[in-house]
Amino acid sequence: MPRTRSALPPTGPVRLGPGARAALRPAIADIDAGFWHTRRTVNARTSVPQGPELLQAAGNLHNLRLAAPATEALSDAVVEGAFQGAYPFVDTDVYKWLEAASWQLAQETDEDLQAHVDRIVALVAAAQQPDGYLNTWFQLVKGGERYKDLRWGHELYCAGHLIQAAVAHHRATGRPELLDVARRFADHIDSVFGPPGSGKEIDGVDGHPEVETALVELYRETGERRYLDLAGYFVDRYGHGLLGGEAYCQDRVPLREAVNVEGHAVRQLYLLAAATDLATETGDTGLRAATERLWHAMTTTKTHITGGLGAHHDQEDFGDPYELPNERAYCETCAAIASVQWSWRMALLTGEARYGDLIERTLYNGFLAGVSLDGERWLYVNPLQVRDGHTDPGGDQSARRTRWFRCACCPPNVMRLLGSLEHYLATSGEGGLQIHQYATGRYADGPFAVRAETDYPWHGTIALTVEETPSDRPWTLSLRIPQWCREFRVRCGERTYDQTDAPVTGGWLRLERTWAPGDEVVLELGLEPRLTAADPRVDAVRGCVAIERGPLVHCLEQVDHPGGGLDDIVLDTTRPLAVKHRPDLLGGVTTVVAAGRRRHIPDAGWWPYTSGDTPAHQDGEPVELTAIPYYAWANREDGGMRVWLPTS
Amino acid sequence: MPRTRSALPPTGPVRLGPGARAALRPAIADIDAGFWHTRRTVNARTSVPQGPELLQAAGNLHNLRLAAPATEALSDAVVEGAFQGAYPFVDTDVYKWLEAASWQLAQETDEDLQAHVDRIVALVAAAQQPDGYLNTWFQLVKGGERYKDLRWGHELYCAGHLIQAAVAHHRATGRPELLDVARRFADHIDSVFGPPGSGKEIDGVDGHPEVETALVELYRETGERRYLDLAGYFVDRYGHGLLGGEAYCQDRVPLREAVNVEGHAVRQLYLLAAATDLATETGDTGLRAATERLWHAMTTTKTHITGGLGAHHDQEDFGDPYELPNERAYCETCAAIASVQWSWRMALLTGEARYGDLIERTLYNGFLAGVSLDGERWLYVNPLQVRDGHTDPGGDQSARRTRWFRCACCPPNVMRLLGSLEHYLATSGEGGLQIHQYATGRYADGPFAVRAETDYPWHGTIALTVEETPSDRPWTLSLRIPQWCREFRVRCGERTYDQTDAPVTGGWLRLERTWAPGDEVVLELGLEPRLTAADPRVDAVRGCVAIERGPLVHCLEQVDHPGGGLDDIVLDTTRPLAVKHRPDLLGGVTTVVAAGRRRHIPDAGWWPYTSGDTPAHQDGEPVELTAIPYYAWANREDGGMRVWLPTS
Repeated sequence: MPRTRSALPPTGPVRLGPGARAALRPAIADIDAGFWHTRRTVNARTSVPQGPELLQAAGNLHNLRLAAPATEALSDAVVEGAFQGAYPFVDTDVYKWLEAASWQLAQETDEDLQAHVDRIVALVAAAQQPDGYLNTWFQLVKGGERYKDLRWGHELYCAGHLIQAAVAHHRATGRPELLDVARRFADHIDSVFGPPGSGKEIDGVDGHPEVETALVELYRETGERRYLDLAGYFVDRYGHGLLGGEAYCQDRVPLREAVNVEGHAVRQLYLLAAATDLATETGDTGLRAATERLWHAMTTTKTHITGGLGAHHDQEDFGDPYELPNERAYCETCAAIASVQWSWRMALLTGEARYGDLIERTLYNGFLAGVSLDGERWLYVNPLQVRDGHTDPGGDQSARRTRWFRCACCPPNVMRLLGSLEHYLATSGEGGLQIHQYATGRYADGPFAVRAETDYPWHGTIALTVEETPSDRPWTLSLRIPQWCREFRVRCGERTYDQTDAPVTGGWLRLERTWAPGDEVVLELGLEPRLTAADPRVDAVRGCVAIERGPLVHCLEQVDHPGGGLDDIVLDTTRPLAVKHRPDLLGGVTTVVAAGRRRHIPDAGWWPYTSGDTPAHQDGEPVELTAIPYYAWANREDGGMRVWLPTS
Repeated sequence: MPRTRSALPPTGPVRLGPGARAALRPAIADIDAGFWHTRRTVNARTSVPQGPELLQAAGNLHNLRLAAPATEALSDAVVEGAFQGAYPFVDTDVYKWLEAASWQLAQETDEDLQAHVDRIVALVAAAQQPDGYLNTWFQLVKGGERYKDLRWGHELYCAGHLIQAAVAHHRATGRPELLDVARRFADHIDSVFGPPGSGKEIDGVDGHPEVETALVELYRETGERRYLDLAGYFVDRYGHGLLGGEAYCQDRVPLREAVNVEGHAVRQLYLLAAATDLATETGDTGLRAATERLWHAMTTTKTHITGGLGAHHDQEDFGDPYELPNERAYCETCAAIASVQWSWRMALLTGEARYGDLIERTLYNGFLAGVSLDGERWLYVNPLQVRDGHTDPGGDQSARRTRWFRCACCPPNVMRLLGSLEHYLATSGEGGLQIHQYATGRYADGPFAVRAETDYPWHGTIALTVEETPSDRPWTLSLRIPQWCREFRVRCGERTYDQTDAPVTGGWLRLERTWAPGDEVVLELGLEPRLTAADPRVDAVRGCVAIERGPLVHCLEQVDHPGGGLDDIVLDTTRPLAVKHRPDLLGGVTTVVAAGRRRHIPDAGWWPYTSGDTPAHQDGEPVELTAIPYYAWANREDGGMRVWLPTS
């Protein structure tokens, strides 16, 4: 089937409302080559197209058919059988796929994909109950009982993903069908939920935040202020014991009073994204202060070097401050996605470059590791270490990539972020254009358009050419100098700067002038590989360093180190790191080659703890270490993996 | 009520059968003063007596009443209401309490306690169904459905604890009532379960091993060989996929082929205890080899310094080799108990001293931390660190001591081990008496009796006096020289030895002579405090040491270190450790005082990972560190705790 560029104007998530108090507004990037183009092409050609079949096989579409009364529109409906799936929120797999497919359709027409979307949208519409309610688990399994188990029921969570899909579908295609479904459900929720004294039936919130940020998007898409108000009501009702007071459900303490992120990581992050949306749309300074405080607390004390979030398998929770384990890092792929979504909103609200820093780190590492290079297999959890002798538990939390999960929240979430990735790269505002992330393509908003050419992250050169510009007034092209970058050069017309004299403020290299079409800027970011150490309070990595290069965290995999395990290896920090481009390896990666040795650990008998002068470990045999980018791990045979390497 | 010494001969768990191939046989110790006497007195006077009221309040006794038909014997029965409790195995709380109370009654008569035991035994007997089956969850909730959910039903697990209680009750009191109940249930199980081709209805095992070691004890108590055979059948049917092949249920690999411990720690350990029992009673060399191999693998790769076992909160599982986290150490109290029970059986089977080493370490640390000093509050999990800024989840896995648990497996398990502790201290065999653990009291078996006086573990002197001995032939008094001990002296008659010339083989100091009553041996174990490091593969404690003294692992608690948190503290290893006896503190403990400092960690901005030359942390302010014994932690106000201390 032919695919052509969509005729509709480009659009994406987080289109700010007319009264938003944002420092920046999203601009559009059109990526057409390079690293992210490759990843997005795999998403568009493999992951997204396989969705309908996987959702059929897992029973998600079956559930919708079963919930829908027989109609002509669903003449092929199979209406027999029982609800399929293990969780009350399986509908969201469908909604997230619809959102991903919609962002896809915003970029190019695709008749096959459009047909699948049309069919599934019709199915969703048919399954909706006359008063707007829609949740196949409660309709099919719970006999229509509603809102009795807000802690675990996920009804509003499901509504949230439906709304997000509908907003995407409407923005991408201009068609009203799914948006109408979403509005009917939102109106129903608005008729049921409200604060005490409002006359509404239920004063409550969902155990899993999500509907809040969706309602803000619905407000943005429809202009209906009451969706924004409803989101604000929900956000402020967490932390008051309506869900039993558990941190897991974000109910231990109100967000406005919280001092650190806690509880279930994805729930916390979705709630924070919503709070940021509200602060942006309403100017609520208390919420803004809370989001800034919690972002800082999260990054300083609870974020893995990969950008991964969530230290506990148990409850999928954040851990305590500086509790950042390696082998048991949870770092759910969905949490990385939620983190990108939240930080993007923070970047828009504040205009600060550091949010783009965390987005970059997360995209290239903790997020991208969640999908295999071929786009067909997934990781739900993203550990930073797999030990020698690891016994894999199988199931969703396996360290092996899996075709689909029992709780399949992550794969369609990856699809929707990759499908909309172009909308997280650049902004306009403050009299110019800001480029947060570097990819080959065109960045444009209003009167400004710039083309970038780069082989980033493999090479550090980004060549920018002004394509459209007002000719009569100066404006500022802002380029984010990554937080990891210690040396760079930039040539702008006749001028050349480096890190010592460039006009950088708060992470932004600000180039202000009256531009002409064809003007060039060449930024060269130094990509020398580096060894990175952690704050000494991160006990899990004491005495270790990680190998990084540019935005990429590297790791060792067993398959590259035959002749022994990885847990005996020590990195020699006195020897230089070398860079080796490997077009043959893992779809083409740049590896970092380091010197190490395999310790000879003396046999201490049956007890591994010794007092007094411990016998010096012999130096051990030298071994050349090949560190691949972390995102590419687990694409070959099973075996050990390490990000953090002992140095002695 | 008056309490007097029981008139029955002393007895305890693991009375070997007549054909047992054990190197050693349990001897009896009668502890009458000192450290364990204090702990056992708290158990006998507080913990055990409070049991009936707690079991009443939690609904366990209610369930038995509800399951029992109305009879005259239960004239006070409340027979209305629903099953109470969250788990299908709540009956075991009652059984473990009955076992604890029975061991108590073996030592002294106690009319109050006897009355409670009689009443509860009658209740258990009344709840048993005519064919011998007994499980209140399945009788009351599952409509009598049986053995349909072996993976999670815990029916045989419950039977196991019933059998162990019955064996204890019979040994302690000589009365048959509970043993009759147990035999009827065991006979029922034997009539239902058996291998393919046996004509039995079910070829299966329980998701939670426990009935196996209980059946061996039942064989020992009754002489009925078929109970031993049934235990052997069950042990060998794990690992063949009858439970779905999960490691959690010990079903991934047969024990005879396993190379390391794995899955749910308590399940693994109870299964290994049973395998050891079987190897002992049957001479099965394959099982013996498996237990020796797995014990070595466990201690070298999966045991915390406290003797605690189980690295994962999720599934209560063992982790991978050398995966021994601190703040998320699970180290369930029940796992420590199971470890003691298993190692004791290994000691009997092999005669080796190292099993007593692990028992000592576990008893004084990982086990004893499970109960508060006053005997009224409990820990289910026993972490090695509580971080500054810890958010406690509450519930069973709290780092705060709890009055009783939703899953109350640990408290009565502690009670039964403390109640029977005298039976884990000494053995006879190989022509003499072996003292595995040191306490003040009398150690006796057959013609041998020795009295010990000691203030161990606070002081290292153990003075032994021979009280009974054959006058006509030499025999060997064997004293375990603890694995941690680097210096000791022993005076035996005219001879004095130290660690350089004492007759020590395999951890046993063997003193052979023709003894006379009144002969004295004085052993002085060096208790200099020491710093202990871990195998370098234990990533979680790289660059750290633990403070130990004798068998005690020490820790820092926040309450002793005002003016800052614990996570900033560094131990100065160049300064000497001092010992300070503190009769006022925590019931009287010896603390270790060390020199440390509080690091000043420079503010690194929002990202805690840095490359290049990290700024040297300033030395920070000196701070005197007070390390208390780990077992005594969490008996004062909430706050941080650390076992492993960074050294730089």
